[in-house]
Amino acid sequence: MNAKMEAARKAVEYVEDGMVLGLGSGSTINILLEKLGDRVQEGLNIKGVSSSVKTEKLARGHGIEVTDFSQVSRLDLAIDGADEVDPNFQLLKGGGGSLLREKIVDVAADQFIVVADESKQVEQLGAFPLPVEVVPFGWEQTQARIEAFGCEAVLRDSGGKPFVTDNGLYILDCHFGKIDRPEWLHNQLKSLVGVVETGLFLDMTDLVIVGRDDGADVLDKHS
Amino acid sequence: MNAKMEAARKAVEYVEDGMVLGLGSGSTINILLEKLGDRVQEGLNIKGVSSSVKTEKLARGHGIEVTDFSQVSRLDLAIDGADEVDPNFQLLKGGGGSLLREKIVDVAADQFIVVADESKQVEQLGAFPLPVEVVPFGWEQTQARIEAFGCEAVLRDSGGKPFVTDNGLYILDCHFGKIDRPEWLHNQLKSLVGVVETGLFLDMTDLVIVGRDDGADVLDKHS
Repeated sequence: MNAKMEAARKAVEYVEDGMVLGLGSGSTINILLEKLGDRVQEGLNIKGVSSSVKTEKLARGHGIEVTDFSQVSRLDLAIDGADEVDPNFQLLKGGGGSLLREKIVDVAADQFIVVADESKQVEQLGAFPLPVEVVPFGWEQTQARIEAFGCEAVLRDSGGKPFVTDNGLYILDCHFGKIDRPEWLHNQLKSLVGVVETGLFLDMTDLVIVGRDDGADVLDKHS
Repeated sequence: MNAKMEAARKAVEYVEDGMVLGLGSGSTINILLEKLGDRVQEGLNIKGVSSSVKTEKLARGHGIEVTDFSQVSRLDLAIDGADEVDPNFQLLKGGGGSLLREKIVDVAADQFIVVADESKQVEQLGAFPLPVEVVPFGWEQTQARIEAFGCEAVLRDSGGKPFVTDNGLYILDCHFGKIDRPEWLHNQLKSLVGVVETGLFLDMTDLVIVGRDDGADVLDKHS
């Protein structure tokens, strides 16, 4: 838990007065929102666009002004978590079920920072099952088409019923094992009828902040 | 109206006893459902998977047994309408707002027949604005990304509010004018975050039945 705290603390240093932020989702982001709230209390002037209903509620609870894409067209900075980060700054996300909104928010930002703890750093993506957001109608057809790429695609469950995302869609957790060609796989899956988005976040990340128990490392894609 | 009637009448001839059908949407399909209902009354044994809530209601009203993809994995034959059909059997669809479910149904079929009247035959697709189904969250971002491909993308409206599809999604009607490279455009648009499906139905059609006032012509892709 302290590693997440250290990552969140470091990430807050990148937030400047007047910024419009993209607010990701997940446990590290929840800590970040708390720390951002503290800075807002001290007079920091920011607005945020949320990537999940849960993040929106938490942000408001911490006194952070929440806006949306009907009001702002670009974000200065998005900060989000990840389930896996590889050495090329490619991400696998969606364990929390907010991958689609997260991607919409993250790609709208001029700069994208990922916060993670050391356990999320992997040599190769795919040990974590790849979440793919799909249309409920005919999901069985979509599942079969995805499985043709060599995985088991399991409909995410919530108390005996399909898990429904904030967008009213389903998630298939796709057990590929190691993913050799993330870009190729993303393109193949995204092109399928019924597939809305995949949890592969490619060529988007500028900075990865890796929290440790006693501090945080900043990895810069551009250095 | 008679041209649609003639197309529907001809299409029904391709339906055989025991088939599982994909049922499209639109005015010509509504006539087809009536004629199919007559044949069911006479003893024809079929089931249908519907591509819209409206088609499902109409089909049931005509005594046609309706099933879904939790029960069947392949369809023998899908019959659907189109807004435009080009000489290469490529389609532009979605004026009625059911393009996503239509595509899911149509690609699940072993054979796909399009019914149309002569007014739908075009030399090049695109005079009809291209419907693109998108995620409501951040639709303004998606709109901007689509417009970068050289069109005006208008949010479809229904009585002063955004039109909502059977899937809970929005539709952007994209005024491209002539579409020179349908496959390229579809791939570009479908790859965008926030885009769920486009109204370009490419390399799917086996047969086009074109209704005229005094009969119907059958165009076979494979002849």
